Amino acid sequence: MSEKDVTRKLAAWISACRIDDIPQSVRDEGVRTFFNWMGCAVGGARHETVDRALAGITPFAGRPQATVIGRGEKLDVPNTALINGISSHVLDYDDTHLKTIIHPAGPVASALLAVAEYRPVSGRDFLEALILGVEVECRIGNAVYPDHYDRGWHITGTAGVFGAAAAVGRLIGLDELRMTWALGIAATQASGLREMFGTMCKSFHPGSAAKNGALAAFLAEAGFDSSLQGIEAPRGFANVLSTKQDYAEILDGLGTRWEAGLNSYKPFACGIVIHPAIDGCQQLREELGDDVNRITAVKLRTHPLVLELTGKRTPKTGLETKFSVFHAAACALLRGDGSPTAFTDEAATAPEIIALRDRVDATSDASVHEASVHITVELSDGRTIEKWVEHAIGSLDRPLGNEQLARKFAHQSELVVGPAVTAELMELCWALPILPDAGEIARASVPAAARRAAE
Amino acid sequence: MSEKDVTRKLAAWISACRIDDIPQSVRDEGVRTFFNWMGCAVGGARHETVDRALAGITPFAGRPQATVIGRGEKLDVPNTALINGISSHVLDYDDTHLKTIIHPAGPVASALLAVAEYRPVSGRDFLEALILGVEVECRIGNAVYPDHYDRGWHITGTAGVFGAAAAVGRLIGLDELRMTWALGIAATQASGLREMFGTMCKSFHPGSAAKNGALAAFLAEAGFDSSLQGIEAPRGFANVLSTKQDYAEILDGLGTRWEAGLNSYKPFACGIVIHPAIDGCQQLREELGDDVNRITAVKLRTHPLVLELTGKRTPKTGLETKFSVFHAAACALLRGDGSPTAFTDEAATAPEIIALRDRVDATSDASVHEASVHITVELSDGRTIEKWVEHAIGSLDRPLGNEQLARKFAHQSELVVGPAVTAELMELCWALPILPDAGEIARASVPAAARRAAE
Repeated sequence: MSEKDVTRKLAAWISACRIDDIPQSVRDEGVRTFFNWMGCAVGGARHETVDRALAGITPFAGRPQATVIGRGEKLDVPNTALINGISSHVLDYDDTHLKTIIHPAGPVASALLAVAEYRPVSGRDFLEALILGVEVECRIGNAVYPDHYDRGWHITGTAGVFGAAAAVGRLIGLDELRMTWALGIAATQASGLREMFGTMCKSFHPGSAAKNGALAAFLAEAGFDSSLQGIEAPRGFANVLSTKQDYAEILDGLGTRWEAGLNSYKPFACGIVIHPAIDGCQQLREELGDDVNRITAVKLRTHPLVLELTGKRTPKTGLETKFSVFHAAACALLRGDGSPTAFTDEAATAPEIIALRDRVDATSDASVHEASVHITVELSDGRTIEKWVEHAIGSLDRPLGNEQLARKFAHQSELVVGPAVTAELMELCWALPILPDAGEIARASVPAAARRAAE
Repeated sequence: MSEKDVTRKLAAWISACRIDDIPQSVRDEGVRTFFNWMGCAVGGARHETVDRALAGITPFAGRPQATVIGRGEKLDVPNTALINGISSHVLDYDDTHLKTIIHPAGPVASALLAVAEYRPVSGRDFLEALILGVEVECRIGNAVYPDHYDRGWHITGTAGVFGAAAAVGRLIGLDELRMTWALGIAATQASGLREMFGTMCKSFHPGSAAKNGALAAFLAEAGFDSSLQGIEAPRGFANVLSTKQDYAEILDGLGTRWEAGLNSYKPFACGIVIHPAIDGCQQLREELGDDVNRITAVKLRTHPLVLELTGKRTPKTGLETKFSVFHAAACALLRGDGSPTAFTDEAATAPEIIALRDRVDATSDASVHEASVHITVELSDGRTIEKWVEHAIGSLDRPLGNEQLARKFAHQSELVVGPAVTAELMELCWALPILPDAGEIARASVPAAARRAAE
């Protein structure tokens, strides 16, 4: 499908749309998107991927304009966006637009929050820009998915740079022409290869998208021009990076159909294929109470991908436990835990978890959907209990509620910045729509001692 | 074609190769590559594209580590590399690897010179890194050209980022593993769309490649890892961005076959299709002497692309004259000029040029090669003189000599920084192989007054 003026029409809409035009349910989802992103960014802030990225870029960083989340270093806006984008994705625990597998918040929120400390804005304006940015990247993703992804592009990077450009462009008030340029400058920076999965470069993609998208907006503001057909031209983004170009996904129903309302949030800090097993085992723990200690056998019937991707029988390290459905099931039964603390070196070597883990068995069954699992638990008193999970928690059919999002946030954040900072930070994130200064949230993510040291 | 360990083998070679292993003729070409690049970077330094890019990024720039060529602003290393990459390409007057249409120096030299001011190196080490960087980008270009270019990628950006990463990685002494990571981090940033031709984003591509390639090298140095098969993996650069993957072009004859020795330099500051006409008219001017004032008619037989791309009959501005073969022929006959001064508003409106321009006629002839032209000149005394140009000057068959490169340099540079700075700068560039501190060249590109103002 070809179309004229896709980029200009999209830019015109971004420049004109106001938060009053956005349905309340979408605004609420925007706050949840931001809340979940912030928890992940704090949770990942001390990962060695972040340490190394900071070591690499700090010698070249500019004025202390914005705050590295959960740590307190101050960098210039684009470099802060890069680092916070890495932190928020490094644990693979962030949000997912399930239709495209885009992780929408990483590129958009990382860019916006850094800009918000440089050019202060209200939480209301921030939320408006965030929702527009998410909407833009998911729509562009829809237009090229799945061909684009199948070819090998990490769509969070390639679509994300448009989201960041749109969001920052909105926040700094670009007019239609400059917004068109910003989308074009974003288009010509679109990058990120799926080959990088499993390396530090994976989380570099949303970070780069945030940084380059922000740069696109600021260059456009300064009059740096670009093609006016960056998305749809014969040698533009959609044709060069994809064999599918469904421009109706970009332009149809702007302002009435909201992709930004379809975001989802991972309940567990591991690959999505283990989620049904953890979900079922947590439910069994609720039902069994102390009887979890009398379990003699656990039998899982799962989609074949589960054993293919997460079939490690005897994980020795925290990282290895993320690829062991046996460990994950045992830890969920004994501790009820699927958060980052379930996948640490401590958990990997805990004797009681190892003992139960070795009594977990799994068989592949192609008739079981990826989002489902069948679990049978045998107890020492001879009882047998069964559990069928149709839709794992965190899917659009069973979204995490706000309390669950808060538990997820706290679980991650408390390990990095402690309970006091975590409590204050969560409160600020929920209050985003009424905050006078959105940038305050970035500064509140840092422990007081680090705040003083940074000043 | 598939191949194992392309990236690692290439990285191993980059890390191990020493300038003593490089033939003298290739080293000489490396100096010419650098010399030509510097003249173009000074020549483009005051272009509004550079002004706007600087306005956009300066608020975020870091410590004053490196010098903006021909101007004197001091920025951090990556942002300096960005700006100098833009300056050197903005006039479309830089070097060309004719097999791939890569402009090799922009990404590589822009990154290296900025790094050389931050971590001082000898001119000899600088030249070594420059040649290796050019070699890497042209070999990777060969592996995917023409499919990759035909699909819509601006190959100077996509291959250039590898060249910059390799060159900077060599300069800072990355070992084989880290060099492999640097190439991977480069691969996942490869970008730049041909749709941007004719906009400011075109010269942004070599600038971004320089910046992102340098960043890749510094991240790898800090231990930021990447895939070890960034180029050849099923979801790596060559498969995702091209339908052709000829890995032999990358690995065969490393150290014996030198693409870096095949660089070429544009003699004229305009699209390559007008070059034969300017070349022939300059030759006619030499032969005719004062009789150029007695010309009554000029008839050109040219490849059809010439009229298609440069058929403007009455150009009104300097920019428009770049698309008028009539203007270019008249200016070459009357002034012998094909440099930037031939394509100014002054030249566009000069009465004597307009008068002759209106007596130039051109006909398309599909039997005439793109590098050729047939010219007939009629004089008021009844004489008719013919000129056949087989290979225009600047092609590999008729490369510019060092004196011609010097004239080209001076023509551009004197307009921006004056004759004294230009003379000193040219001397330093020729002396690159024996300079104790290569970064000195960047500082010498700035007029003394601007040097003092920047300090």
